[in-house]
Order: sequence, then structure tokens, then C-alpha cells
Amino acid sequence: MRLAVVGTGLIGSSFALGARRAGVFESVVGIEPDAGRADRALTLGVIDAVADDVPADVDAVLLAGPSHTIADWVVLLTDHPGILFDAGSVKAPVLAAARRSGGLPRRFVPCHPLAGSERSGPDAARPDLFADAEVIVTPAPETDREALVAVAGWWQALGARVTEMGAEDHDRVLAVTSHLPHLVAFAYLQQITDEHRPHTAGGFRDFTRIGAADADMWTPIFQLNREAVLTALDELERSLGEARDLLGAGDADGLAAFIRRAAARRGGTDD
Amino acid sequence: MRLAVVGTGLIGSSFALGARRAGVFESVVGIEPDAGRADRALTLGVIDAVADDVPADVDAVLLAGPSHTIADWVVLLTDHPGILFDAGSVKAPVLAAARRSGGLPRRFVPCHPLAGSERSGPDAARPDLFADAEVIVTPAPETDREALVAVAGWWQALGARVTEMGAEDHDRVLAVTSHLPHLVAFAYLQQITDEHRPHTAGGFRDFTRIGAADADMWTPIFQLNREAVLTALDELERSLGEARDLLGAGDADGLAAFIRRAAARRGGTDD
Repeated sequence: MRLAVVGTGLIGSSFALGARRAGVFESVVGIEPDAGRADRALTLGVIDAVADDVPADVDAVLLAGPSHTIADWVVLLTDHPGILFDAGSVKAPVLAAARRSGGLPRRFVPCHPLAGSERSGPDAARPDLFADAEVIVTPAPETDREALVAVAGWWQALGARVTEMGAEDHDRVLAVTSHLPHLVAFAYLQQITDEHRPHTAGGFRDFTRIGAADADMWTPIFQLNREAVLTALDELERSLGEARDLLGAGDADGLAAFIRRAAARRGGTDD
Repeated sequence: MRLAVVGTGLIGSSFALGARRAGVFESVVGIEPDAGRADRALTLGVIDAVADDVPADVDAVLLAGPSHTIADWVVLLTDHPGILFDAGSVKAPVLAAARRSGGLPRRFVPCHPLAGSERSGPDAARPDLFADAEVIVTPAPETDREALVAVAGWWQALGARVTEMGAEDHDRVLAVTSHLPHLVAFAYLQQITDEHRPHTAGGFRDFTRIGAADADMWTPIFQLNREAVLTALDELERSLGEARDLLGAGDADGLAAFIRRAAARRGGTDD
């Protein structure tokens, strides 16, 4: 079994390493516009070869580039005989764009692995990145079930838990659980200066870890999922307003209830 | 050397364990209004005895209860011969309140260890909680320098780095680096429901870890440092508005610059 990986960033490289270790694919060819990153992926043994285009004879193609590039690749590979799947953080606009430009290939399986790091590139890759991670699959009505079962099996071979969701539901839920926290961390960090940085501890580091994430990856996510992100941001601003009112009114009981509700909604501490 | 710890929560208990291990204090008596927590601290060997009041013959008293209780204890212990120090997250209002009620004892050394956890109580205590942590000391003009040097030495014996700052500067800086992130995490979590919780990963867990913090500890922090927290919140809301405008305008370059500025202000990734 031969795999092509379009994009040898953290996700593409980690899948390549993990899939080879699990024996799911024997060889991996990388398609990577960044020549330095492609060299690094080769040197690290993440991929066996670099190509400008996806070879016609690979059995599967993982689209692991930034979210705004995925629909174009799906359209370009409409007639490819292999199974296509992606790892993008936004799903519905990709399906819609592919449908607008000549139809959605039945052998394209839209996937979103909920794994990652604020670090990026092949050097950050780990074969076990998807162990115990959730991979959300958002099949369209036209998606081939055999292709879906095959792709789900590959993720499971890497230790992931595969769940199924509608693409619109996915985008609305992930706007809240992932895209908004990133936007907030980016916004929060704008006010940090040399005066603040020495006086930070573990709480600050945890809260802002996602704020060090890659701009090339995150800009298109926000743009593609703009409406859902703005709705989640409205909701946050309402809650910040509530906190401001409780603070302004000196309402200790109300503030304590607000804080307790937060812990309950999170589901408690981690251990 | 005998120590009294007022409040056997995470900070008080961790200091007691660490100070005994470092040989700084031989015995520790706990003053703890919560009988269950006092029993637990005794059982775990965090303290040797429980008392209703601070014994007159202890050499030092650590005030480690919630921030709004500290000024009252300082006033109550004005004539105590031992060295007093605290571990509260807000400094200037405590000094002001003590001054209003009969004067600030010269042997009171205001301290804020930047260490903690979303977990609380003696069960969460660790003797090495302050290893490599910063402890900010905010002496007042009337603070006795010998007392300050002694207290700094105790924290250093536990592995902490002691720095000195004015109380007002401390409260303004910590509003940004600690109090605002907690408020934002509490506000963000309000919109999380059963629909979202299954679809979260490491980014969400890190971002919201401080959102599971203790309401009894955090309510008085926000109330005591209200003005500085509201100023920091104003600044965050300005940045969220900027992000909203960039998103609304579809300004990819502006959004990417905003994200890159965030990573730079943080000081990069953690590893």
C-alpha cells in the first residue's frame, strides 16, 4: 500500500510515521511546496520521496495542508483512483467548494483529527500523535461507505477513536471547543509586554500555549469558519459582560456561582 | 523554629511540607476554620497540631487563607512577636486595609508565590511546589528589612526565586498575567455543554485548566483587584474587537499578523 501526503507539517508527518509503524502503508511520497520542509521530512525518514504532483498509482492521498488548500486538491484529484482523505479543521465549506467546482468525489472522506500542538513541521511529528485522539469523520451523502470504513481503519490502526458527525455540526461545535479558544489566546496575548512576561507561571503558560500556534494554519480556519466563530465570540462577550456586571456590583455570591458553573461545565480538574 | 500556618489549602500545606523538608521549621501548627480540611492536614502530616488561634510562641506566621481574610489577620496579629508573611494574590488593598485599622506591623512581609494549581486543599500539596517558582515580595516603606531577608531566605530554601516589586505594580501586572486569564477561562466555559465536551482535545484542556480553580479563592481576588482587572479586560475586549474587524473584513494578511504578534508576545512555544 502506497500513501501520498500533501503537506508534511505536524499532522501529515505524524500520520506518515504512525501509518508506517502500524504497517498500514509501506511507502509514503510527500508533496510539499516548502522545499526546506520537504528536505527535512526526507532526512527524518517521514517520507521516502518527494513529488511535485500526486502519483497516479498511490492507494491513498492524505490532504494535510492548510484548510484553504484542501478543496482545490479534492477537485484536482477528482479522477484519482485512490482514496482521498483530509485532516482539516473546517469541513462544510470544503465540501461546498468541491461541489461548486465539478462535484465531490465519492472516494473523498472528510476527516478532522483532534490532535496537534502549538509546534509545527516534520520535526515536531510523532508516530503516536493520534493515540487516544478523536478523529471526527464528516461524510457527505455521496461519500462511498467502503472508502469511509477503510479510512476509519487507518486512523484506528494509529490508536485513534473515530466518531461520525455532520459537517455543519462539526464546524459549529469546533468553533466553540477549538477555534474560539485560539482566537481568545491570540487576542489576550496582544497586551503582554516585557513588563509582564517575567511574572508568569504555569497558569499563564497553559492558558496561552495555543496562542503560539501557526498563523499559516489558523488564518484560513478563521476565514472558512467565520460565521460560527463570530457566534461563539458573541457568546463569550456576553459572559465577559456578565462577569463585568457582577464585579461592578460587588456581587460576591453571583461571582462565586459564575466561577463554580465554569468548573462544572469543564467537567472538573484533570486528575 | 516553629511556624503557624493560617489556612491549610494548597499553598499553606505545600509551604509547611517544603519548609519542614528543607529544615527551615521543625514544627507547624495549623489554624484552619474548615474542620475536615484541618483533620486531613493532620492525617497527611502537613501540620503537627491544630489550634483555634495563632500561638504566641511561634517564630513565624504564614497567612495562606483567601485574600480577603489576610488584612484582618495582619491587624489581629499586630502585636505578635513573630514574623508575619502571606501568600495572597493581591497586595496593595491588604496593606491599605491594615493601615486603616491601626497600622501595618513592621514585621509583616507581603509575599505572592506564583505557584499553584487548579487543585486545592492539603491533598493537592507538594513539598516542591515552590521549586523554581517566582515569589514576589512587595515590602511597604515601614517593612522591617531583617524580617524581609528572613522570609526571602525561607522561600529560597524551598527553591523559589524571590523578586521585589511595589504593591501597586504587582497588582497591575498580575491582573494581566494571572487574574484576567482566570476570568476569561471562567467566562469562556459558560457556553460549554454536553454537545461540546466530547469533542475537546489538549488545546481545550490547557486553555481551560485554570477555569477549574477554586471559587472561594478567586472571588475575593477579583473583588480586591477589581479596577486593575477591569482595565485588563478593557484591553482584551479591544483586541477581540480588532480580531472581529479583521475577520469581518476578510483581511487574511491582517489576521496572520495579529496571530504572529501573539506568538511573539508570548515568547514562542514552550520547548
